[in-house]
Amino acid sequence: MKVAKVSGTVVSTISFPFFDSKRLLICDLINARGEVDGYTIAVDVVDAGVGETVLVLDEGNSSRQIFGVDTGPIRATVVGIVDDADFGDFSLQGP
Amino acid sequence: MKVAKVSGTVVSTISFPFFDSKRLLICDLINARGEVDGYTIAVDVVDAGVGETVLVLDEGNSSRQIFGVDTGPIRATVVGIVDDADFGDFSLQGP
Amino acid sequence: MKVAKVSGTVVSTISFPFFDSKRLLICDLINARGEVDGYTIAVDVVDAGVGETVLVLDEGNSSRQIFGVDTGPIRATVVGIVDDADFGDFSLQGP
Amino acid sequence: MKVAKVSGTVVSTISFPFFDSKRLLICDLINARGEVDGYTIAVDVVDAGVGETVLVLDEGNSSRQIFGVDTGPIRATVVGIVDDADFGDFSLQGP
Amino acid sequence: MKVAKVSGTVVSTISFPFFDSKRLLICDLINARGEVDGYTIAVDVVDAGVGETVLVLDEGNSSRQIFGVDTGPIRATVVGIVDDADFGDFSLQGP
Repeated sequence: MKVAKVSGTVVSTISFPFFDSKRLLICDLINARGEVDGYTIAVDVVDAGVGETVLVLDEGNSSRQIFGVDTGPIRATVVGIVDDADFGDFSLQGP
Repeated sequence: MKVAKVSGTVVSTISFPFFDSKRLLICDLINARGEVDGYTIAVDVVDAGVGETVLVLDEGNSSRQIFGVDTGPIRATVVGIVDDADFGDFSLQGP
Repeated sequence: MKVAKVSGTVVSTISFPFFDSKRLLICDLINARGEVDGYTIAVDVVDAGVGETVLVLDEGNSSRQIFGVDTGPIRATVVGIVDDADFGDFSLQGP
Repeated sequence: MKVAKVSGTVVSTISFPFFDSKRLLICDLINARGEVDGYTIAVDVVDAGVGETVLVLDEGNSSRQIFGVDTGPIRATVVGIVDDADFGDFSLQGP
Repeated sequence: MKVAKVSGTVVSTISFPFFDSKRLLICDLINARGEVDGYTIAVDVVDAGVGETVLVLDEGNSSRQIFGVDTGPIRATVVGIVDDADFGDFSLQGP
């Protein structure tokens, strides 16, 4: 998993029922120095908002488990809102 | 998933029935600053054209689900055309 | 697997029973020159503390095996505390 | 998938029947600017020669499908010889 | 697969029977210019020694096949000792 900050959203026409009424979040990945370092687009499961610090789990089988499906086309999921992430040299607090 | 811009196509003789009449798109991956950062070749499922902004899902099991096969040799798929991708600092609009 | 140093912990509200009473460790990955190079957040299974040198196994199926579950949403696990890691040019010793 | 140029071969004693009489190709990965950017060693399935431009599929389940095995120890396969790869700014032609 | 040079070993207390009496090798990955570029820790299956040039297969399902287990917590394996790796611009020879 990675700590990320939600920077925005994607609206896209994806014609697979799995994506119906699911939000796609652009998650800026935070590196060990607290900087943004890449991003991934993850499906939201915790109702995270733009600007929030979240945990992203980037594995298809894990993500399918979370949505309770055997076969959905999904790889990355926002699984949690971070209350506190202590990296040693710095830390990030949630709301 | 990643946001990408279709930059071109690949024509290749692949002797597996799965690839018959499927288009292979060269997808330039867009990073969190809006720059091109690497590419992947993905199978098209949304009839995307060169220059279009798309969503690329890069996981084999997900891609096989999308094509409804248990065992196709495929990893990355263009799953959607982006209507709007809001990265916070910039945004990309679709057609 | 990678050698890593535990730099901190993450507290996050994840509403999946799998994560109940599991510790999430921020693991700074050590590269072949002994420098920190990226991190991953892994579930602890060996009661590792901050500052300890550990082995991180970053594969979902492996991690699910370790926890004895078929379907948990997990990718990376701290599987061992390093007693001695000899990289040739340098080495790291455990406690 | 990635576009690659076959730069050489590997001869190695691998004592698994799967690898008997299979050729291992060193494939220089071509990035979106036409430069070599990393490599992977892939099993040949199209009789590609050194210097040829090929498509590399880097996923174990896909590769196992291609060889018609459920359990072979294989991750990357050269699945096609590129006739034409149009990256927008440049293109690569096959033989 | 990647060509690597064994630079050292890791001794770690891992309390999973799978790892009993298995050697963990630190494998410096060799890039297309012959330089060391990252490393991975792989389980030895060919009795490779420090300084030897080897082939590393980095996929869990493949590695489990090699050890003949359905469920072992393993991702990367040293599958062969390289006799000759011809990268075009340079080559590496085995013992």
